[in-house]
Amino acid sequence: MAKDLPVSPLAVPLPELPAIGGVRFATAAAGIRYRGRDDVLLASFAPGTTVAGVFTRNKCPGAPVTWCRDILPGGTARGLVVNAGNANVFNGAAGAAAARLSAEAAARTLGCAPEQVFLASTGVIGEPMPAERIVAVMDGLAADLAPERWAQAARAIMTTDTFPKASTRTAKIGGVEVRISGIAKGSGMIAPDMATMLAFIVTDAAVPAATLQALLRRGVGPSFNSITVDSDTSTSDTVLLFATGAAGNPPVEDARDLAAFRRALNAVLHDLALMVVRDGEGARKLIEINVAGAVSARSARRIGLAIANSPLVKTAVAGEDANWGRIVMAVGKSGEPADRDRLAVAIGGVWMARDGRVVEGYDEAPVVAHMRGSDIRIDVDLGLGRGRGRVWTCDLTHGYIDINGSYRS
Amino acid sequence: MAKDLPVSPLAVPLPELPAIGGVRFATAAAGIRYRGRDDVLLASFAPGTTVAGVFTRNKCPGAPVTWCRDILPGGTARGLVVNAGNANVFNGAAGAAAARLSAEAAARTLGCAPEQVFLASTGVIGEPMPAERIVAVMDGLAADLAPERWAQAARAIMTTDTFPKASTRTAKIGGVEVRISGIAKGSGMIAPDMATMLAFIVTDAAVPAATLQALLRRGVGPSFNSITVDSDTSTSDTVLLFATGAAGNPPVEDARDLAAFRRALNAVLHDLALMVVRDGEGARKLIEINVAGAVSARSARRIGLAIANSPLVKTAVAGEDANWGRIVMAVGKSGEPADRDRLAVAIGGVWMARDGRVVEGYDEAPVVAHMRGSDIRIDVDLGLGRGRGRVWTCDLTHGYIDINGSYRS
Repeated sequence: MAKDLPVSPLAVPLPELPAIGGVRFATAAAGIRYRGRDDVLLASFAPGTTVAGVFTRNKCPGAPVTWCRDILPGGTARGLVVNAGNANVFNGAAGAAAARLSAEAAARTLGCAPEQVFLASTGVIGEPMPAERIVAVMDGLAADLAPERWAQAARAIMTTDTFPKASTRTAKIGGVEVRISGIAKGSGMIAPDMATMLAFIVTDAAVPAATLQALLRRGVGPSFNSITVDSDTSTSDTVLLFATGAAGNPPVEDARDLAAFRRALNAVLHDLALMVVRDGEGARKLIEINVAGAVSARSARRIGLAIANSPLVKTAVAGEDANWGRIVMAVGKSGEPADRDRLAVAIGGVWMARDGRVVEGYDEAPVVAHMRGSDIRIDVDLGLGRGRGRVWTCDLTHGYIDINGSYRS
Repeated sequence: MAKDLPVSPLAVPLPELPAIGGVRFATAAAGIRYRGRDDVLLASFAPGTTVAGVFTRNKCPGAPVTWCRDILPGGTARGLVVNAGNANVFNGAAGAAAARLSAEAAARTLGCAPEQVFLASTGVIGEPMPAERIVAVMDGLAADLAPERWAQAARAIMTTDTFPKASTRTAKIGGVEVRISGIAKGSGMIAPDMATMLAFIVTDAAVPAATLQALLRRGVGPSFNSITVDSDTSTSDTVLLFATGAAGNPPVEDARDLAAFRRALNAVLHDLALMVVRDGEGARKLIEINVAGAVSARSARRIGLAIANSPLVKTAVAGEDANWGRIVMAVGKSGEPADRDRLAVAIGGVWMARDGRVVEGYDEAPVVAHMRGSDIRIDVDLGLGRGRGRVWTCDLTHGYIDINGSYRS
């Protein structure tokens, strides 16, 4: 069972999320694993809602991921069922049947096809999924649907997250204001499981499914695909974006009509992704890594992730040690083009190494002060090209070992 | 400075290493960083000694690595200088000059060319290398050279290793007995540096340099290149193999003449590599991961390393939790071909998951007992092909955070 973890020192308050036309939520305590809290979320979408999704690249995905991938080409969504406590991963044919059972129950109450109901589960791996407990609460959930239940929704999907995560923005499409709101869950641990990231974003904009998918796929690159807590990729990672169309904006003609929408969407994705890092297991510091001068943007991002995933860099930050030598090591091990004698490294904006050697007499005082803060910035300049990238991670602390190395009871 | 770390619970005793014809050692306290201990090793090789080497793939290698790579094609070695406390990494042109200075000093006392003197340094990164301190002790070292000083040599190269590492074997070439002995240092931490692996192996066999290089390159695959402590690749990793020829074995005609030699060499490499893992930072358990049924040996090794580098797998082992769900996750994230519904996982020889689901009613008692031991075995069968691989790692504990996350003083 999840332990009572102290709230992350990097937590941010839950914003006020106004209702969005075309979506309603309800949550319930189905007792899948947790006791005394809501662990199932049902979302209902208005007819005509379009949907986009991106999923884990893990080759052993959970049954809900497979289900969502299969129905996504339909492009429309009427329902979403999310549960916490059981990941429905590695359950064979029984897992697929459990997923279908949940979708069918929701479809019956919502009056739609099962293939219009999206699913996500996080929690224990390899334990039979008690879908009948979700079925049992479905009628109550349907009767309870209401548009303003964002905060409840954000809490019901948590596993060992230490704070609920949500973000909201507005934008205009063809002069009509539309809203984009999202919730996410991140890196918490339920033995015997791993950290899993889920995010659900809803907008009242009317956007065709194919356009929505393109926006989401591009949007996750600099947000959810640029964060890492411990380099481990969950079997259940899922980001879904629903567009209800209730705002009544004029039809989208081309990509330029969506420039403001895209910015607002990317801002929500960015907010949610950073909240996941801020709640990384045992995190005490948020680390932003900016890579410039790489041979390409792709190379810059890979170098950034090599730094972000280096246990030695992460423990150094935990120890408030401005250890640029470990950053050099991580750049070198990334396998990406790098020239030792052109490399420069800054921490907290102070360039400590340049042209392959330490900067003689750099001012250490601001670096020391920066390392004591909770937001750490690392800059690396490869000096080779114009490729840039930015990634985020958190430090590696005793808290991570506590959460993940505790005896299974 | 290095702290006094408790000796690893996985430590193995230093074996008795007999003298090997054609090599002599001396150690001295040069005061490069440590006080009150020997920190420089000089080895002298008989004329005609051949040499092979493999080095870190890190793109930001230290000056000694660059030096060795440059002189290796010469194929002969007369000297080896190793220091602990300063890695001579990221020191620009001054680093290269310091390396040359050390090699020249050794060459003068040994009566050879500087290009016959191999170098290795581990310790602080980005701090000027005080090569003059090595030069200052060189005459004393040369006067003190003696064949039996293996144990001193093994200790002089340690940084924060908690025990000295050595291994020895014999084999026959053309009816003549030859000996192979080696020393290594592993994963210790000196702020602001990273774990670094060095190994030096000497044999009295007469083996041409090209043959030696082929043997070493193949030998490091299943040994040093199949171990990982924390996925971070040092800028200084170096394995050197010297063959003095003093045993007087007949000339090697073809690879078959060396079958026994190769086995003995591989055994020494294997011993040393596992000792490095046994002294992994904070290690309390040695983990052996066997992967079978992969599409190729290369794929099997990559899957093994994905498991071995997973912080979630390593913390689970630290917590004595037989968490096969995390192993499934690590297989899936490796990017290698895998089929969720054919995958099988065993811990301690007990198959807990098979055909994509938990094995109903498997006997948990022997698994629990196995997890309490210090040698953990994980088996994974992909069920796809005949590719096999084996890798080793250690668990991830609070000790790792203590060692690497401590404040820089």
